[in-house]
Amino acid sequence: MRPYLSPMTPPPTIFLLGSGNVAWSLATALAVKRCRFLGVYNRTPEHAKPLADKLGCAVIFDLEQSPKDADLYLICTSDHAIASVSARLPEVGGLVAHVSGSAAIEALDEKHKRRGVIYPLQTFSGKRAADFTNVPILIETDKQSDMDFLTALAHLVSDTVIPLDGTQRRALHLAAVFACNFTNFMYGLAAEIMQENALDFQLLFPLIQETAKRIETADHPMTLQTGPAVRNDVETIRKHLNLLENQPELQELYQTLSQSITKHFHGDKI
Amino acid sequence: MRPYLSPMTPPPTIFLLGSGNVAWSLATALAVKRCRFLGVYNRTPEHAKPLADKLGCAVIFDLEQSPKDADLYLICTSDHAIASVSARLPEVGGLVAHVSGSAAIEALDEKHKRRGVIYPLQTFSGKRAADFTNVPILIETDKQSDMDFLTALAHLVSDTVIPLDGTQRRALHLAAVFACNFTNFMYGLAAEIMQENALDFQLLFPLIQETAKRIETADHPMTLQTGPAVRNDVETIRKHLNLLENQPELQELYQTLSQSITKHFHGDKI
Repeated sequence: MRPYLSPMTPPPTIFLLGSGNVAWSLATALAVKRCRFLGVYNRTPEHAKPLADKLGCAVIFDLEQSPKDADLYLICTSDHAIASVSARLPEVGGLVAHVSGSAAIEALDEKHKRRGVIYPLQTFSGKRAADFTNVPILIETDKQSDMDFLTALAHLVSDTVIPLDGTQRRALHLAAVFACNFTNFMYGLAAEIMQENALDFQLLFPLIQETAKRIETADHPMTLQTGPAVRNDVETIRKHLNLLENQPELQELYQTLSQSITKHFHGDKI
Repeated sequence: MRPYLSPMTPPPTIFLLGSGNVAWSLATALAVKRCRFLGVYNRTPEHAKPLADKLGCAVIFDLEQSPKDADLYLICTSDHAIASVSARLPEVGGLVAHVSGSAAIEALDEKHKRRGVIYPLQTFSGKRAADFTNVPILIETDKQSDMDFLTALAHLVSDTVIPLDGTQRRALHLAAVFACNFTNFMYGLAAEIMQENALDFQLLFPLIQETAKRIETADHPMTLQTGPAVRNDVETIRKHLNLLENQPELQELYQTLSQSITKHFHGDKI
């Protein structure tokens, strides 16, 4: 269901604020769906130039010059800049929305009568196009009347659009830090261990894919836990800690994670 | 290349010691390739019965009764039992091998003249068949003359068979703990956070799959790191720690991992 793109309704016009990874991914996906971009704001115009060129619009470096008649003002800045950017944006009639998982809708300046959040639950590590079809997009609006608009907009690029209040969105964002950011760091540390031992990181790809894939058919990831810590295999843990004796930080991380796993599964029995 | 399965060569006979997850997965895969099992050893016979039935062989609970003429004695016990099980196994003419990533080949009793290791780099979380085709199998033997046999055997089930000495195998096993065990624990913690907030864990599947998939085309996982810690976004980290204030262990883990990421990427600048 992508209700907004009916032949009767022109796709919305958008003023984009920010030009980082999320801006690149989301804006280019929306442009493919015929959304028209009226400009890209960045304090440092040369940062926005490549994206503005791609979207076929101008760079705006003074928020006073923002277009007044966009349907959507899409704020893709870092979280801490949302308040100041939305405050410097002149009062507009369109919907003003940010894309953050952890910032509240109230981070948007209250002079804006129509505020919203459109949070795509995905990781964007480069300035490039992305396929949002399977990416859940979580939306929130101040006014119920804006919910339809933002739902339709998100449906332009995603099949999964879900209204979610700020409290749940923040919890989801926290869970995503574990599921994605911490996980990727584990991959990175594994890659470093492989490198140091002249082993090809690609050897681990089937293991990594299986670990990610099998959770989709399990009751809970915890039922799939394997490895020395869940077995409380102190001998193997000791060997691993010895192997890391010249990398005290990695050694400490290994120990903390192993203790946490052992405690989680064996609790006070240990 | 699966040289052993030439029509000229009968598949090897195997005596299986142990009946846990790895035994189940590996033995059933080898049985599909027409390896003949001469028995399954377990001190507690009823534990081995279902697997022995599946493999069409007897349960042996006294190692003195082990078959003397198997081509391979495949020890799939826990690491700490390898030494005692191989010591209680009578001296045999066939190859005696364990399947452990972290145990040395020397864990096998030295009375056995032909020793080896066949380590499948995968996670086995249930007593069930598994597809080893893409699973790297790392092999080591005492005698060079046994390398061909073990290579051919591993090639029965896997396309990727690599000789690797004990030092590198232990490093690989350590890297696998980060890439699989710690990663799965991150998934589990994310699932718990989702549950506590009445959110469907399935929402995170596309993020988890993307995080696992994109490493295959990147230079290094560290180049893909996103999230509050790598941005040194202290405000978001503080919010997340507040969300976890009633879960001190999870809070501590979040903090340790975030500090480790920040230090990794920003070092002394912080």
